[in-house]
Amino acid sequence: MPTIRFHDDEPELDQLYADLSVNEVQPLWKLKGLLTPEPVVATRPYRWQAATLHRLAQSSGDLVGIDRGGDRRVLACCNPGLGGAPYATSTMWAAVQYLGAGEIAPAHRHTPAALRFILSGDGVWTLVDGDPLRMSRGDLVLTPSMTFHEHHNPGLEPMMWMDVLDLPIVAGLDAVFFEEGPSEDSDTRIDPRSTSERLFGGGPGLVPTGVPKAGQSSHSPLLAYRWEQTDHALALQLENGAAGHSSIRFANPLTGKDVMPTMRCEMTRVRARSCTDARRQTGSRIGTVLNGQGTAKIGNDTFELGPGDIFVVPSWASYELESTSELDVFSTSDAPVLEALGLYREAAA
Amino acid sequence: MPTIRFHDDEPELDQLYADLSVNEVQPLWKLKGLLTPEPVVATRPYRWQAATLHRLAQSSGDLVGIDRGGDRRVLACCNPGLGGAPYATSTMWAAVQYLGAGEIAPAHRHTPAALRFILSGDGVWTLVDGDPLRMSRGDLVLTPSMTFHEHHNPGLEPMMWMDVLDLPIVAGLDAVFFEEGPSEDSDTRIDPRSTSERLFGGGPGLVPTGVPKAGQSSHSPLLAYRWEQTDHALALQLENGAAGHSSIRFANPLTGKDVMPTMRCEMTRVRARSCTDARRQTGSRIGTVLNGQGTAKIGNDTFELGPGDIFVVPSWASYELESTSELDVFSTSDAPVLEALGLYREAAA
Amino acid sequence: MPTIRFHDDEPELDQLYADLSVNEVQPLWKLKGLLTPEPVVATRPYRWQAATLHRLAQSSGDLVGIDRGGDRRVLACCNPGLGGAPYATSTMWAAVQYLGAGEIAPAHRHTPAALRFILSGDGVWTLVDGDPLRMSRGDLVLTPSMTFHEHHNPGLEPMMWMDVLDLPIVAGLDAVFFEEGPSEDSDTRIDPRSTSERLFGGGPGLVPTGVPKAGQSSHSPLLAYRWEQTDHALALQLENGAAGHSSIRFANPLTGKDVMPTMRCEMTRVRARSCTDARRQTGSRIGTVLNGQGTAKIGNDTFELGPGDIFVVPSWASYELESTSELDVFSTSDAPVLEALGLYREAAA
Amino acid sequence: MPTIRFHDDEPELDQLYADLSVNEVQPLWKLKGLLTPEPVVATRPYRWQAATLHRLAQSSGDLVGIDRGGDRRVLACCNPGLGGAPYATSTMWAAVQYLGAGEIAPAHRHTPAALRFILSGDGVWTLVDGDPLRMSRGDLVLTPSMTFHEHHNPGLEPMMWMDVLDLPIVAGLDAVFFEEGPSEDSDTRIDPRSTSERLFGGGPGLVPTGVPKAGQSSHSPLLAYRWEQTDHALALQLENGAAGHSSIRFANPLTGKDVMPTMRCEMTRVRARSCTDARRQTGSRIGTVLNGQGTAKIGNDTFELGPGDIFVVPSWASYELESTSELDVFSTSDAPVLEALGLYREAAA
Repeated sequence: MPTIRFHDDEPELDQLYADLSVNEVQPLWKLKGLLTPEPVVATRPYRWQAATLHRLAQSSGDLVGIDRGGDRRVLACCNPGLGGAPYATSTMWAAVQYLGAGEIAPAHRHTPAALRFILSGDGVWTLVDGDPLRMSRGDLVLTPSMTFHEHHNPGLEPMMWMDVLDLPIVAGLDAVFFEEGPSEDSDTRIDPRSTSERLFGGGPGLVPTGVPKAGQSSHSPLLAYRWEQTDHALALQLENGAAGHSSIRFANPLTGKDVMPTMRCEMTRVRARSCTDARRQTGSRIGTVLNGQGTAKIGNDTFELGPGDIFVVPSWASYELESTSELDVFSTSDAPVLEALGLYREAAA
Repeated sequence: MPTIRFHDDEPELDQLYADLSVNEVQPLWKLKGLLTPEPVVATRPYRWQAATLHRLAQSSGDLVGIDRGGDRRVLACCNPGLGGAPYATSTMWAAVQYLGAGEIAPAHRHTPAALRFILSGDGVWTLVDGDPLRMSRGDLVLTPSMTFHEHHNPGLEPMMWMDVLDLPIVAGLDAVFFEEGPSEDSDTRIDPRSTSERLFGGGPGLVPTGVPKAGQSSHSPLLAYRWEQTDHALALQLENGAAGHSSIRFANPLTGKDVMPTMRCEMTRVRARSCTDARRQTGSRIGTVLNGQGTAKIGNDTFELGPGDIFVVPSWASYELESTSELDVFSTSDAPVLEALGLYREAAA
Repeated sequence: MPTIRFHDDEPELDQLYADLSVNEVQPLWKLKGLLTPEPVVATRPYRWQAATLHRLAQSSGDLVGIDRGGDRRVLACCNPGLGGAPYATSTMWAAVQYLGAGEIAPAHRHTPAALRFILSGDGVWTLVDGDPLRMSRGDLVLTPSMTFHEHHNPGLEPMMWMDVLDLPIVAGLDAVFFEEGPSEDSDTRIDPRSTSERLFGGGPGLVPTGVPKAGQSSHSPLLAYRWEQTDHALALQLENGAAGHSSIRFANPLTGKDVMPTMRCEMTRVRARSCTDARRQTGSRIGTVLNGQGTAKIGNDTFELGPGDIFVVPSWASYELESTSELDVFSTSDAPVLEALGLYREAAA
Repeated sequence: MPTIRFHDDEPELDQLYADLSVNEVQPLWKLKGLLTPEPVVATRPYRWQAATLHRLAQSSGDLVGIDRGGDRRVLACCNPGLGGAPYATSTMWAAVQYLGAGEIAPAHRHTPAALRFILSGDGVWTLVDGDPLRMSRGDLVLTPSMTFHEHHNPGLEPMMWMDVLDLPIVAGLDAVFFEEGPSEDSDTRIDPRSTSERLFGGGPGLVPTGVPKAGQSSHSPLLAYRWEQTDHALALQLENGAAGHSSIRFANPLTGKDVMPTMRCEMTRVRARSCTDARRQTGSRIGTVLNGQGTAKIGNDTFELGPGDIFVVPSWASYELESTSELDVFSTSDAPVLEALGLYREAAA
């Protein structure tokens, strides 16, 4: 902590500032920008294009073995406002993960929670605590905090998907724990349907009898939300009125809360040539396009959007989607964190 | 309050008992059976057979206009243990309701909550606060406390269904309020799909974005649970293992709680030639058979069951289903009340 | 169930009614008074006078050994509207209990929850699961559902207090369980302060570190609320403004909820020559006077009140207190039950 | 983001790394230390000594007007592990604030929540939304998120206290909002007792009738916890057994939850020549000594402690207090944040 910044014009003050500095104390009146009228946000509006991400992932798959680092072949989207930190926003990690034909990303677990959203392809399984979840286009797959998870690609084609993690939050709270899974491979006979979905995926508002409503676990017992049902829900909601868009939140069927305590997942459909209202909220959002073409206006930036693009909305930046063709956008925000701490605000922009 | 029961052998005691009686006071030591080792239950195990209920309902439809009483043509199942009270158990009302072709049961609302389970037929709409819910075989339709509800039969066939209400509970708490709906008829153009289902019926764990997780209202925003989905959920759960039965609880998709604060709804499927475990719980249950044949062992009684039969399980009586063919039983219990008050117990019988 | 009441003017209807009756079914259109615009309440406004209760209790103490019935010498206040049932209201039991010098009421436990409010005297201990709670004038002592409780009077004077139980509710739900305590007496060395109070009675908002905020148990861990503190809280609140009365609710310090899931306890102080607003609410209330003189207007009745009087307010009856001297009224209501079930209403009367 | 770090031995890889870098993407396999077996914590165990803090505060009071910065004369304790950031731990700000005789720190409000713990002195008032809270030795005073707060020193002596804020958390979530209060001064007639305390400070488990149990606001309605009561609670708990220490948590009397959603406050008393068990937990803690002498063992460091010293316990570091004379330590942790996000762990160290 350099003394220099405490330098002032009066000798006694200089003396005081030196005394403060050597004692690991800083005076509030020399600190600027701590309490600002509105959030001053380092995270910038940004978009990574699908074609670039695909090229880079493909190239990584060709050149780098999956065993080289973290047992995952993952490319992290790094927000240019964050000074080189490998994070998409100040609170969330976003990445693309690429698993070649026949590859296995072995089991491990950690306190940061992750979700996978599948933008294209099919045929990889994620096993969560041993429960096999087939990954297909449009699906949302959860690997909650401290669940063992591994990815298997038994097919002949490589596959790529988006990962979102709450890693910056967990790291910021000094609460990262990590553990390797057992060394032997999981059973490779892959079940076509997970136990999780057999128990909790039967239908809206239908849960197994006798399961405690408020269990120990804070995450959803339903670990995969299938595109077929998401698509159906968006279409049904659009039927309901003249609005140009519909939007669903992925909820824990046992509690109605968010799927994980740190991340809210939503899917928004904008009819062709329609737009959402410009809104802003505290906390950041990571979006990706499943279907369609359009633009995202984020703060003062406008980004063209197409399938597979990933973009970020910083805290308190206005956010608006406009479609040319019918647009389906999956997004994850840290809203549950802000709500839990009494810091959530939203407003028309 | 007759003095006689205080009569004793000692003159001073006689005098005391007379004094107590005239002052509206009773001595605990003369009261028997207040605190018993286990519940002493007036409600008896009982079953009403479908054929009988159909005959009586049909006959009522022929002879009694819907305008004659309560604007509803309803036959209440009266437990023979309850001394003539029109209740199926000490806490719940069960009845069959019959609506002739072209008839309308006009709108009203009341604090007692009701649910309708449709055992056969199709083509009647229940409007809940104006939202039209088509009623078809196997569906569960809710008319929560203080929602206006009316039934329309625009078709050519009469239709009958089962009603369950928490009326004894609400009456016991001196909290019955009732209000007629507006005198003019609701819009008769019947929508094929309710707003409730468009918003909340899209799929498991999918809810509209922005709907508060814990709203004012204590009942489910999803007002109809369709047989197609219930059937699917039961089948999925059965896939999961070697168990001879599956069972789902109908839950509020926004909270995971029961559909209404006083009644828990469940559907159980017993594979052919299988049985459930004998269990008992505090609070009573009303069951009805949608599909299949079997028996219910309730306390010391055994009842043959077939489609449309209605039966009751008293508090703390053992209860076990055994099937000859695959058996689907819908049931309603007051378990949420007992849980809320810290009085719920269950055990193997 | 007599057929006679189904008799009508048309032979086919007579036939139908006979058929219904023999099959344990009743037609809604012959049932009157099930759904009324407002609650039709059997419980009557009533008051038992302190002098009478004292005379009767004293006389019972002289004539009847504590071992004669239920191991408790209890006189139940029986509402004259309830047809001889030993209940003060449709949902609550109220009684005076009298324990002579040297007597012990041995340990037992039951699902109905009880509370004791001490109107005069001192020197009896209630042991709750072995924790000794000294009972003194103005104290509220809890014996929650299924806690073993016993009363010891080691002194030279008899003592009398008020009991309130949720017995009618628990009985109405067929959930009464009862168990004798161990036959040997509890340790008779009486501790001057309970563990409960040492842990939870230290001050407002001060709870032991590490105690789970939402534990298994649904009742308050603080088992005695002392008059000294209640008096202080009422006085502090009165300081706050020009209102003529103050009122506190006894809360579970770990949750803020009511002390037990079925009963709300409150204490109201009305300044001399002031009154409360006339209000009504669903559910019933049992009140008793600790200090002062005044009147209670309950529905269409007005009762003079003095120390030790017990009175009841039926559901939805207007209720208003008016004081001549400063008046302290303790009351218990079933409001938590009505709230939990979505049936609570209140309004100006 | 310098390309250099992606440099490798193979030309195609170099090419890939350059391509990644220019596209704001980083490969996981080049990132070290993201997921560690246990938290790798920058915050260091540290202690600021009372004498130093007093000297620096006094000197600042002499040399720097209160109007010079932030309208507060505050010296922030800066953890030497945090690279110059003005934070005591990665999640909390700790500081001493000094208000001279006759000075006023005018009203403002902000989303970061603050608490004040008074280590010595008396006679300053903090007004929270206009409610005047007298500050005296041993008191805990809350200024929750977005409440206007100001400090008045109408006396003749300067006064100093400790501030703790959740500023790093709120800033990390990009949710800092700040607003000046109205320019005119608040009413300077200082009330001896706050409305907050008149309503919620009456006694353990005593709350005003009719206040909703779960209100809008997520913070405690009781804004001052007085030393007299804290001291009493600690003494009562010590009476309870042979343990060498007692510890209380400051709770919201309406909910039992922590006083604010981001910070848990606790007070621990260690009898003379006793010690607490060595424990560790995720999340950090800021402690200060009110009374007594002893040592804190924090991770591998041991600090002598005396009145007015401030110390920090980093996440997952073992923590143990040992007393020479009876020791009273007030501490604040971010445990509610970790609990809300499912990240709280604790263990014996």
